[in-house]
Amino acid sequence: METLRKLLDDPQRGAGKVFALIIQFLIVLSLITFSMETLPNLNEETKRALYYIEVITVVIFTVEYCLRFIAAENKIKFATSFFGIVDLLAILPFYVTTGVDLRAIRIVRLIRLVRIFKIMRYNNAIERFHRALIISKEELIMFGGAGLVIIFLSSVGIYYFEHNAQPENFASVFHSLWWAVATLTSVGYGDVYPVTVGGRIFTFVVLVLGLGIVAVPTGLIASALTQIRHEDEEASGSDES
Amino acid sequence: METLRKLLDDPQRGAGKVFALIIQFLIVLSLITFSMETLPNLNEETKRALYYIEVITVVIFTVEYCLRFIAAENKIKFATSFFGIVDLLAILPFYVTTGVDLRAIRIVRLIRLVRIFKIMRYNNAIERFHRALIISKEELIMFGGAGLVIIFLSSVGIYYFEHNAQPENFASVFHSLWWAVATLTSVGYGDVYPVTVGGRIFTFVVLVLGLGIVAVPTGLIASALTQIRHEDEEASGSDES
Amino acid sequence: METLRKLLDDPQRGAGKVFALIIQFLIVLSLITFSMETLPNLNEETKRALYYIEVITVVIFTVEYCLRFIAAENKIKFATSFFGIVDLLAILPFYVTTGVDLRAIRIVRLIRLVRIFKIMRYNNAIERFHRALIISKEELIMFGGAGLVIIFLSSVGIYYFEHNAQPENFASVFHSLWWAVATLTSVGYGDVYPVTVGGRIFTFVVLVLGLGIVAVPTGLIASALTQIRHEDEEASGSDES
Amino acid sequence: METLRKLLDDPQRGAGKVFALIIQFLIVLSLITFSMETLPNLNEETKRALYYIEVITVVIFTVEYCLRFIAAENKIKFATSFFGIVDLLAILPFYVTTGVDLRAIRIVRLIRLVRIFKIMRYNNAIERFHRALIISKEELIMFGGAGLVIIFLSSVGIYYFEHNAQPENFASVFHSLWWAVATLTSVGYGDVYPVTVGGRIFTFVVLVLGLGIVAVPTGLIASALTQIRHEDEEASGSDES
Repeated sequence: METLRKLLDDPQRGAGKVFALIIQFLIVLSLITFSMETLPNLNEETKRALYYIEVITVVIFTVEYCLRFIAAENKIKFATSFFGIVDLLAILPFYVTTGVDLRAIRIVRLIRLVRIFKIMRYNNAIERFHRALIISKEELIMFGGAGLVIIFLSSVGIYYFEHNAQPENFASVFHSLWWAVATLTSVGYGDVYPVTVGGRIFTFVVLVLGLGIVAVPTGLIASALTQIRHEDEEASGSDES
Repeated sequence: METLRKLLDDPQRGAGKVFALIIQFLIVLSLITFSMETLPNLNEETKRALYYIEVITVVIFTVEYCLRFIAAENKIKFATSFFGIVDLLAILPFYVTTGVDLRAIRIVRLIRLVRIFKIMRYNNAIERFHRALIISKEELIMFGGAGLVIIFLSSVGIYYFEHNAQPENFASVFHSLWWAVATLTSVGYGDVYPVTVGGRIFTFVVLVLGLGIVAVPTGLIASALTQIRHEDEEASGSDES
Repeated sequence: METLRKLLDDPQRGAGKVFALIIQFLIVLSLITFSMETLPNLNEETKRALYYIEVITVVIFTVEYCLRFIAAENKIKFATSFFGIVDLLAILPFYVTTGVDLRAIRIVRLIRLVRIFKIMRYNNAIERFHRALIISKEELIMFGGAGLVIIFLSSVGIYYFEHNAQPENFASVFHSLWWAVATLTSVGYGDVYPVTVGGRIFTFVVLVLGLGIVAVPTGLIASALTQIRHEDEEASGSDES
Repeated sequence: METLRKLLDDPQRGAGKVFALIIQFLIVLSLITFSMETLPNLNEETKRALYYIEVITVVIFTVEYCLRFIAAENKIKFATSFFGIVDLLAILPFYVTTGVDLRAIRIVRLIRLVRIFKIMRYNNAIERFHRALIISKEELIMFGGAGLVIIFLSSVGIYYFEHNAQPENFASVFHSLWWAVATLTSVGYGDVYPVTVGGRIFTFVVLVLGLGIVAVPTGLIASALTQIRHEDEEASGSDES
């Protein structure tokens, strides 16, 4: 039992490392096959190969789930934990959809994507990101809200400037929202853009004031992450002394 | 009276929390209806529904305004305060425009948007943003000025490089300003761009030198916000000790 | 003499403040008229108005230059100083070009733009920016160099991937440079972009690795500016105690 | 021998400075000639000139390599060191390809580009960047991984929203990846963009959540570089005292 737990939960060395690498490889492989299935004009051979890879993946994931279930001290706690549910959802769609018409279950197949969360088990840095979010939570909410307000007001503004000149692209405030999002995130696809003098001056003002607001959260997370690193370094520093 | 004040100004618990949530819901709802009214091809039914929502919203906002006025110790001070004026402007357009031809009062209806400021009452993090602006005020003005200078000089430069090749897109320095804004904010719609070798080399130089200058304010605000959080943590830390 | 110096160099109060505001207003006004002169289809009346504004501006700038020359203790030092030369160049083009054919002297007229530097006299925050540049000089050079290297290597790479598919847009490494600049600064005009699978994967890699490198200098300047503010606050803090 | 070592490794003064400048000039020159060779419609004269420049460059680089080999105390260690291999690869393609048909060796000629790494010998700030990478390694891996996950999930999402409306542009998840990369790096070429309401709302959500994640690494490197500068300043400060 102890050996089993080491195999499952100690990805740093020995058999646990090999096991962890196999699982991670299968996760990435199954995401690639998921994507490949969407390719148009797949021949029958490839389709069959993809199916076999899927079967093998599901079998190994099922074995993994059973082992984790057996190794768990508290069975119910494991089955209802985040990773317990993720592990189950990673294999369930396969068993449910076997023999069923594929078209009807497209959304069920999408659930296969939860496999991407299985990989989080091996990434202990996520805990650090979580703490960074907590530290900068208040500012993130504030700037999230401010960003939404600016995007909304920009949409209203550009609607009034451009609606008459381009009734198609700026048909309503909702249509203008698309422009506001693409502009204030500085993506600028170029499918909609102001053509009137008023609209262009308005865009100028919006960009100068708004770009900073929309981009600030990035800086906040980066600075919170830096702070956490310092705290951890100090903590490990005082441990050593 | 004391109960009324608690209802109005204590959004953390009890009746005050319920009241605050209702008001916030109505603010968001009325912004959505505002946007929906701009949709083309609305049928009569929807129009009537939107109108009823507007009436209900205005009635509740009016009640809120009256309650706040009654609860205020200094009536004049409340009526002339920022939120006092915002609360009034949030309802006034409705009473003024009832029965008036809608076309003539499009601009009056825009005033309804001040409702978005009512939501600031419930966001105490704005005070923190205000302090961040004060801390980094000098640099923000400096970089705001530098950004404007760079945008202007870029416009003049690109005008001289591209005017002959694209007399339509770069008809004057003012027309070139539009290119400079879209480029230096890295939006890049793609409606205007240099085609001459000189213009492209100039764009290269402008982007390398200018992009940093234009983007610096974001970093400044983020770093000022971080500083304020540290100060607050220290302040609350020394309070506890 | 003392009064004259106060008038010229003390823009914080009294006559000096009024004088500074007039000069700054004229600088901005003359930049606007400069831009307006490039507008196509100007009627004779506007042209004459712009000319009169230019004459008045130059007269006042000339008076300012003479006053500064008189007030200077060391005449030669003033005449060869940065602002001495800027002040001279701001008025010289007018006197030189009067009566000369305008077409031949387009480049001379561009010198009028040095007036924009006159405004720096009133912006004492530039000194702070200068210090930030010195602090982060080494990293800026490093990342400037790294940025150029990445842009160059991206051009070579995309040239090899896209040259055959789009011989027009990616005719040579120099043509590809234009794509590299527009992409790595995330402007993305959309006039040139990869269409081959190889070129798109290459773009993906380049963006993931390169975008960070190219954008780092902004963060460096922001952080250096923050450091300088702290130093100044500490310096003024220890002065007071 | 001692003089030779000073010439090669002391680019700060005397003959070593001259030697370093010559080598750096030749590196940049040979990168320019490399690019020029890709220009279409080169006349014979230019081609010959480019060839002569290449010959001279290779001769001098060969002399440099021999001198470094002679000066090295441990010949094998030098020959297998990073810069030893770079120096060799910078000249080898020339000798190997002389007299061989040019078309067959296009990829060999690309190796000439390693010359760009020769310039790193003179940039001692790279060591600082290396340390910044080590400091923020964990977060960079985390955000690199998170960025890839977000780009992948965005591709899957937009594929489901846009596949039916634009079967050409969003033919598969792999085709959608191109959109995801161009959008989340905010390049936004404008060759592919969502047109359905669902796809646009999805893009909005992805941009708001994802843009920050993708851009965070830049902030992390900048902040790590700042930290290193502080450490170096403190180290040199305590040395002096």
